[in-house]
Amino acid sequence: MRRLSSEHFIYKMSAKNNPVMTIEPGETLVIETEDGFGGVIKSDADPFPVIDLERVNQTTGPIYVNGAQPGDALVVDIKKIILPKQGVTTIFPGFGALHDQFSAEWKKVCQIKAGKVIFAKGIKLPVRPVIGTIGVAPAEGAVGNLFPGPHGGNLDVNDVTEGAKILLPVFVPGALFSLGDGKAIMGDGETNGVGIEVAMNVTAKISLIKGSKIARPRLENANSVMTIASSKTLEHASKTALSDMVDLLVEKTKLSREEAYALLGAVADIKIANVVDPEVTVRVAVPKYVFRQSKQNSQNSRDIK
Amino acid sequence: MRRLSSEHFIYKMSAKNNPVMTIEPGETLVIETEDGFGGVIKSDADPFPVIDLERVNQTTGPIYVNGAQPGDALVVDIKKIILPKQGVTTIFPGFGALHDQFSAEWKKVCQIKAGKVIFAKGIKLPVRPVIGTIGVAPAEGAVGNLFPGPHGGNLDVNDVTEGAKILLPVFVPGALFSLGDGKAIMGDGETNGVGIEVAMNVTAKISLIKGSKIARPRLENANSVMTIASSKTLEHASKTALSDMVDLLVEKTKLSREEAYALLGAVADIKIANVVDPEVTVRVAVPKYVFRQSKQNSQNSRDIK
Repeated sequence: MRRLSSEHFIYKMSAKNNPVMTIEPGETLVIETEDGFGGVIKSDADPFPVIDLERVNQTTGPIYVNGAQPGDALVVDIKKIILPKQGVTTIFPGFGALHDQFSAEWKKVCQIKAGKVIFAKGIKLPVRPVIGTIGVAPAEGAVGNLFPGPHGGNLDVNDVTEGAKILLPVFVPGALFSLGDGKAIMGDGETNGVGIEVAMNVTAKISLIKGSKIARPRLENANSVMTIASSKTLEHASKTALSDMVDLLVEKTKLSREEAYALLGAVADIKIANVVDPEVTVRVAVPKYVFRQSKQNSQNSRDIK
Repeated sequence: MRRLSSEHFIYKMSAKNNPVMTIEPGETLVIETEDGFGGVIKSDADPFPVIDLERVNQTTGPIYVNGAQPGDALVVDIKKIILPKQGVTTIFPGFGALHDQFSAEWKKVCQIKAGKVIFAKGIKLPVRPVIGTIGVAPAEGAVGNLFPGPHGGNLDVNDVTEGAKILLPVFVPGALFSLGDGKAIMGDGETNGVGIEVAMNVTAKISLIKGSKIARPRLENANSVMTIASSKTLEHASKTALSDMVDLLVEKTKLSREEAYALLGAVADIKIANVVDPEVTVRVAVPKYVFRQSKQNSQNSRDIK
C-alpha cells in the first residue's frame, strides 16, 4: 500500500496546486496528516502559537485521481484512522462560538491512552476520530482550508470517520483531493473552534462515480445517508441540505415530492456540524431503512410506473 | 391516578389562564391531549382544515402546582406515552423549512400499527413519541402555543419523550403547566412544520426544585444532560444553549470555565430542534459520564478547595 507523507501539504484548495501523487481509481492508500496547527504545540510548556488563519488546517495532498473529470463524484471510503499519543485543544481569541466570553489565549495538551483522551479533572473521553477538512479543488480560484463549501473543505462533520464514505463533486480534471485537520474526538459545532486536534494516519480507498453530478458533499455510513451544506447562516445551510435530501429521496425511492418532504418532518436527523467557521455547516441524515423499504416495495410491486 | 381530559385546553400560555386542576408536587397523573390541529383530520377524505396559527398546538391544562413559586424549577418526569391508531402529516402553505418549494395544501393520514407508522410506498417508521409543546405560564403577557421560549412552549425537541425529565423555570405562582402537540415520530427541525401528529395520553410525575433559578428549559435522560434555547436565529440559539452548558459544567464539575468551553468542542451533541417556528430552537447535549467522572474524581481527591 502506498503512503503519502504529511510533508506534502496545502493551505488552500485550488486547480493551480501541483499534485504530489497520482493514483488510479480504486486504489487504497495511507495518507499521513499533521494537526491543524502544523504540529507546533507539543507540550503545555510551549508558547501559544502565532495563528495565521491563512495557514491553518493544512491538508495532505493534493492527489491527482486518473480519469476524474468535472461532473464525476469522488468516493472516499474511510477504512481506518490511526491516532497519535496526544492531541491539543485551544482557545484562540476572536474565534469560536463564545468568543465574546473568552478573550484570552488558552491551550491544553491531552494524552491519548487505551482509546481515551485524558481531558482534565479525571474526565476521560472515548476517542471518536474525525477528519475535519477533506475536499477537492474548487471550479475556480483558491479556497482556504478554514472554509467549508461545495468542494468539501473544513466541513467539521462528526460523521466523517472510520467506516464512512464521503462523496465529493469533482470540479477539475484529476479532482486534486486532500485531507487533514484530524480530531481524536470533536463535538458538534466545534464550539471553541477546535476538537482534540491530532495528527493522523488515514487509510482510504478512493474511487469514482462517473457523471454523478452531485452539487455538494454527501455522506453514507452503515445506518444513514446524509446531505451536507455550508452557508453564511445555519438557516440557509439547513434549507439547502434538506432540499438536497428531498431530491435524493425522490430520485432513490418511490416517494412523491410531497411525501419526501413530509418524511423529513418525521425522520430527519439534523446536526449543526460547525457554527464557528467563516461559513457554517449543517448535515441532514435519513436512516437507510427508508431507502431499503421503498426499494423492496418497488421490487414486490406490480405498480409499474 | 388522576386523569386530566383533553377537553380542558389552551392556545396561549398565560398567568391569566384559570387552572383546570390543582396538584401537589410529586403527584403522577395522566394528561390526555388532542393533536395539534384539534383532531379535525380523521381521514384523507376530510377537507384540508382552515388553519388559524393563533389556534394550533392546543395544550391540556393549565395545571396549578401547589407551592410552585417564581425561581423554582418544575420537573416533569415523562413516564409513559400512549399513542392512538393513527396520525396525520400536512404541508401547510407558507409554513415549513421549504415553504418556497411547496405552495399547495397537502395532507396524509397514517395508520399506526404494532409500533410502526405506516407512512407511504411500503415505508414504515418505528414510533418514537414526542411532546412538541410543553411549558408554563410566562412571567408577563400571553405566549401563543406556536412559540418556543424560556417558558418552554413549542420546543419540538425530539428528546422530550418517554424516560426523559424536563425542567422548566417557574415564573408565576402554581406554574400553570400544560402540554400537548404530540407526535408519533418527529424529525429534527420539524422540516415541513409537523411530525406525524397525534393525540396522546401522557403519564407524568410533576415535582419541584425549590429556588433552582434556571433561566430556560433543561432536559435529562439516561445518557445526557441538555440545555435548550430558542431565538430568532439558530446561531444565537446555539450560543445561548452552549453558554448555559458552560455554566452548568462549571457548577456541577471541577472543570474551569476554559476547560468547560473546550470540553464542548470535544463532546457537545448539537441538534436543530425546530427550524420552522416563529423562533427557532437548538438543544445541546453533554454525556452524563462527564458529570459522573468529575464527581468521582472530586470524591477521591485530597485536593480540597
